Amino acid sequence: MSLIHNKLNKSIPVPLYFQLKELIMKEIKGGTYKSGDLIPTENELSESFEISRTTVRQAITELVQEGWLYRIKSKGTFVSYPKVGQGFTKKLESFNDEMNRLGITPSTEVFEFSVQEASAEVAEVLEIEEKDKVLYLYRRRFADKEPVVTIQTYLPFSRCSFLADKDFTKESLYHQLALGGDACRVLQVRRIVEAVEATEEDASNLKMKVGKPIQFFVSTGYNALGVPLEYSLARYPGDRSRFEIMVSPE
Amino acid sequence: MSLIHNKLNKSIPVPLYFQLKELIMKEIKGGTYKSGDLIPTENELSESFEISRTTVRQAITELVQEGWLYRIKSKGTFVSYPKVGQGFTKKLESFNDEMNRLGITPSTEVFEFSVQEASAEVAEVLEIEEKDKVLYLYRRRFADKEPVVTIQTYLPFSRCSFLADKDFTKESLYHQLALGGDACRVLQVRRIVEAVEATEEDASNLKMKVGKPIQFFVSTGYNALGVPLEYSLARYPGDRSRFEIMVSPE
Repeated sequence: MSLIHNKLNKSIPVPLYFQLKELIMKEIKGGTYKSGDLIPTENELSESFEISRTTVRQAITELVQEGWLYRIKSKGTFVSYPKVGQGFTKKLESFNDEMNRLGITPSTEVFEFSVQEASAEVAEVLEIEEKDKVLYLYRRRFADKEPVVTIQTYLPFSRCSFLADKDFTKESLYHQLALGGDACRVLQVRRIVEAVEATEEDASNLKMKVGKPIQFFVSTGYNALGVPLEYSLARYPGDRSRFEIMVSPE
Repeated sequence: MSLIHNKLNKSIPVPLYFQLKELIMKEIKGGTYKSGDLIPTENELSESFEISRTTVRQAITELVQEGWLYRIKSKGTFVSYPKVGQGFTKKLESFNDEMNRLGITPSTEVFEFSVQEASAEVAEVLEIEEKDKVLYLYRRRFADKEPVVTIQTYLPFSRCSFLADKDFTKESLYHQLALGGDACRVLQVRRIVEAVEATEEDASNLKMKVGKPIQFFVSTGYNALGVPLEYSLARYPGDRSRFEIMVSPE
């Protein structure tokens, strides 16, 4: 473990827990610690850095809360990087913006971007007729080269045809939609959340095994008037994703 | 299939899709169709009831949206009853209230209700000291006798000791908490959402197989002043649960 050969600087006014936290994040981002790796115990960290367990715990707890680490009872603390998704469930934030905020390099692969006929299901959700034209966008998104989600999106062609020449390996869908004016700006999204099993397609797209848990979101995005603008199916590998929601009384 | 021996009444002013929907719901609630059962295809329903496929589709689509049925591409439409959870993620609603609203009979089994010492993790979340006393409540909840969730809840004893003699096979935790006054009323809940694998304990508690997807929620409930009142770990079988969330810009 290279981590414990590092030292904290006790003569600067940066809190020790914060220094330790930064150090661990650096090791994760630098690739020394990989997703699923066990990190040293609180005792080990406390001893090798000569700091109290309370200080260690504060660093670890914040990293857990921020999604960099996760604890498994009586097994230890593991690296969960990249754990993403707050921008998806807590407030609307583009994937790229969220990644940049977290200091992660995002990238997107476009599997398919085509004009299709709406299925009964897609037509129903988008409030158009069956076989009406829709834009179909199938993307895979990466956080520092690790695949973190695949998203299939259907957009009503009549309202969104101006997107047809966009390059969604570079552009954010919501940003581009908003350029079409208020009628095309997604202001509220309804998501149905389910835990399902990984298919063969998931396994190959998301570097995981068939049957493992997938966090599945079926989303419909609406403009300010409640007109549906997008219907999306997003599949996140369960072991690399964690989402936060806030619930209040009605 | 008993369903297709029923008839719709074309001489009353109740829309046919609605009659079909009611009929299917009755079969589900009556137990003719069980969770996971395949229902007849749109063509079969259309032929046996002598109604258009559009009418059939409207009935099915609404049942899917309401969580009674689910579709699997190229496999068919299945019974997903009981699918519960809106009250858990969209707004705060007690389990019993949600079940009653859905016309489902709720029940609760209390595996354990005891006073324990807070672990480091629980103490951190509840903003108390490690080893401070907490109430520990471990429940299993049923919808019409089908187990739908297990919940382990930790409550700070100093603030919630008045709950110690309550019977949580009958009482709702949030209702009982609120009887303690505003300081004990849960007004906002932060939930972390993850898809994880079923453990052996899940398998036996929730009638499912080890390794199948579990929708896992780690929740912290706060009063109006942001003081943490409860820390809960809820585990729902993926194939019997579906949740809805609404996301807006910040």
